[in-house]
Amino acid sequence: MQTKILLDEKDIPTHWYNVIADMPNPPAPVLAPDGSPVPPEALLAIFPEALVEQEVTDKRWIEIPEPVREIYQLWRPSPLFRAHRLEAALGTPARIYYKYEGVSPAGSHKPNTAVAQAYYNQQAGIKRLATETGAGQWGSSLALAGQMFGIDIRVYMVRVSYEQKPFRRSMMQTWGAEVLASPTDRTESGRQILARDPDSPGSLGIAISEAVEEAASREDTNYALGSVLNHVLLHQTVIGLEAKKQFEQINDYPDVVLAPCGGGSNFGGAAFPFLADKAAGRQVRLVAVEPASCPTLTRGHYAYDFGDTVGHTPLMKMYTLGHDFVPPGIHAGGLRYHGDSALVSQLYHEGLIEAVAVKQLATFEAGVQFARAEGIIPAPESNHAIRAAIDEALKCRQSGEAKAIFFNLSGHGHFDMASYDRYFSGELEDYEYPAEQIDAALERLPKVG
Amino acid sequence: MQTKILLDEKDIPTHWYNVIADMPNPPAPVLAPDGSPVPPEALLAIFPEALVEQEVTDKRWIEIPEPVREIYQLWRPSPLFRAHRLEAALGTPARIYYKYEGVSPAGSHKPNTAVAQAYYNQQAGIKRLATETGAGQWGSSLALAGQMFGIDIRVYMVRVSYEQKPFRRSMMQTWGAEVLASPTDRTESGRQILARDPDSPGSLGIAISEAVEEAASREDTNYALGSVLNHVLLHQTVIGLEAKKQFEQINDYPDVVLAPCGGGSNFGGAAFPFLADKAAGRQVRLVAVEPASCPTLTRGHYAYDFGDTVGHTPLMKMYTLGHDFVPPGIHAGGLRYHGDSALVSQLYHEGLIEAVAVKQLATFEAGVQFARAEGIIPAPESNHAIRAAIDEALKCRQSGEAKAIFFNLSGHGHFDMASYDRYFSGELEDYEYPAEQIDAALERLPKVG
Repeated sequence: MQTKILLDEKDIPTHWYNVIADMPNPPAPVLAPDGSPVPPEALLAIFPEALVEQEVTDKRWIEIPEPVREIYQLWRPSPLFRAHRLEAALGTPARIYYKYEGVSPAGSHKPNTAVAQAYYNQQAGIKRLATETGAGQWGSSLALAGQMFGIDIRVYMVRVSYEQKPFRRSMMQTWGAEVLASPTDRTESGRQILARDPDSPGSLGIAISEAVEEAASREDTNYALGSVLNHVLLHQTVIGLEAKKQFEQINDYPDVVLAPCGGGSNFGGAAFPFLADKAAGRQVRLVAVEPASCPTLTRGHYAYDFGDTVGHTPLMKMYTLGHDFVPPGIHAGGLRYHGDSALVSQLYHEGLIEAVAVKQLATFEAGVQFARAEGIIPAPESNHAIRAAIDEALKCRQSGEAKAIFFNLSGHGHFDMASYDRYFSGELEDYEYPAEQIDAALERLPKVG
Repeated sequence: MQTKILLDEKDIPTHWYNVIADMPNPPAPVLAPDGSPVPPEALLAIFPEALVEQEVTDKRWIEIPEPVREIYQLWRPSPLFRAHRLEAALGTPARIYYKYEGVSPAGSHKPNTAVAQAYYNQQAGIKRLATETGAGQWGSSLALAGQMFGIDIRVYMVRVSYEQKPFRRSMMQTWGAEVLASPTDRTESGRQILARDPDSPGSLGIAISEAVEEAASREDTNYALGSVLNHVLLHQTVIGLEAKKQFEQINDYPDVVLAPCGGGSNFGGAAFPFLADKAAGRQVRLVAVEPASCPTLTRGHYAYDFGDTVGHTPLMKMYTLGHDFVPPGIHAGGLRYHGDSALVSQLYHEGLIEAVAVKQLATFEAGVQFARAEGIIPAPESNHAIRAAIDEALKCRQSGEAKAIFFNLSGHGHFDMASYDRYFSGELEDYEYPAEQIDAALERLPKVG
């Protein structure tokens, strides 16, 4: 019985897939607080032209530069697994497949876009990139990518993570990045915070402000973001594109595609290439899986909101819990974002994709069941997709349907064992975001125009 | 340019290679302290018959059971990489290749034998396996394997590691193993230690004593060892056998094969299949790379010695620093063994393989250079092979020779970032084992007969 469906290096996609080409309506415009459209050129202060162009183009296929494909070769194509042992453990007639992105040197899917972003910045003559990171998944991926293209990386890492989670910090340093505990005294934003609170533990919002400030104020420095934006989702489509070739190879096709959804790049990367088929009439369900503690799509408002906490970014139309949403301290750090990608949001609003929210304890239960059947210990973010995949497979056991279920196993959990520890010791709890707080957030959304 | 040389699942070897068949002389007998040979049957108290048979057979090929190959499919065949980027960074005409065993769910090569051992014990009706672990690489691999074959695993983990390195402990628990901080009060050995020192930090020697005592005293329980023994090295030959097929595929062949060497399973697994070619007249150098702080092959005595610290095991003829050798606290935990596999020792003594000792700081320097070129962050043990491979490649730059250099990248370093941290902060030091201590150890070696 075949377990892994592998592709050759020559099968690494030559083009990324741009979902905008197949959307029933053009993306909602990005607006300034006064309601006027923000021109793409406004982004050139912190992003190279190639990425700004990718942000707005409606061309269906964007060529992947050869130097990017060469770096992809270090771990791509990633394997597609048939989860024979999980199927047997569940007693389901369903066929369960997963794409394993944990084979990248950073252990997650994030390098797929980090490498592309580093490349385009290098081509534009940029010498340095500034970025923020929480637990360090994005920062470490950009550190890796910067090393590959000779770009200096400075990572503003939320201070509390810097101190409590030293391992991804060491990873970034191994790849040559400079890692600073944010807030720092190197930026105006950081100094302001420190003046008020010298012992500030930092936050992702503060770290973003520091990185953007540095990028905006230095000629040789740009900014890089690990999710949410259109070009980031575009680069991640290598996941779904490879998966489609792999399904072709075994003459199968998924009935349902599942991926974790925080900022949207994990889900968009896995699901958008299948949306192209759906747009062409093929039956396939695309399901974004989010935490019940941060239920942006399933419970949030579809409205214009800021992308950051402080309100520095332009307004994007998206599902949001309010830009001042403070997510509770659950462990799937990568899924704790108040909003969602504008593309994912619009496709959800238009009914082309589905969303489901799952509770934390159930995701760890699923992750442990998966590890015991399939070996791989998944990242807590990935456990969200696994929970939903197992639920689908159990429905098949009930109904007798032999569906093909495909999910994105976006990373391994080797840096997340402390979360598993807390799960085993009973310290983790479920948390559902209260409805009244979601209602209240509506009142605080920015008034446009 | 091809980066990864991949094989199909159907190319997973059907047989392990037994180097005994190609050794110029039969292995030196295992002896009791009185000088009488120890019969293989003596091992049946703690090992299943199939493994005892593999320990002594001189059959060249041992069939890999289908259920073991099925579990291997979860990560095997592992990729062979051509290190284009490292070659360029070094400016060497050499071709550098590495086999990457970090793709296993445990992140190292150890599951290759853990899975086989769990299978044979299950077939023999054994319900439980007891073992010891230091940092947790072996314990986690056996936990994974036990889960796959429905065998309960109890791991005696050295207390100081249990407390200071909780992440591999959590891994073992995720795979359903019971992990105890050794010394425990569950065994006579443990109770004796605790009576003398209630706060004992434990040691690998104590943990071995506890695991063996439990296995010897319970009908349903056997013992499992992660290196040193012949059957363990046998199972690891899947590494070298796959590599040979991969070299065939690209019409290349290594001039030199390098692997880290502690107990010997990493080196034996990668190098022995090439020794078969050497025995048939082919030119290939096989080099075991050990730490200068624990220079068993390069500085030790070739003599009969105990396999454990306390002196419970039979005597094996091997290179040894003395069974009471206490290795200094360097970070390549997996290479801190006073002796070496009897097979590796005999082959070294007979001049069929070479050995080199490398210093700690130079291994980390090599590991960081590798990570920055190739992406993957290696385990500290693997850094030893990388150091030696880089040194070979630099010699080629001097001489202009375009040699093919192959090494075993036995695992990733995602659980070892604290060691990298200490390296970056300047806390690590070089240590060479003093010659007078090695001389003194000779005096304390057991007198046989």
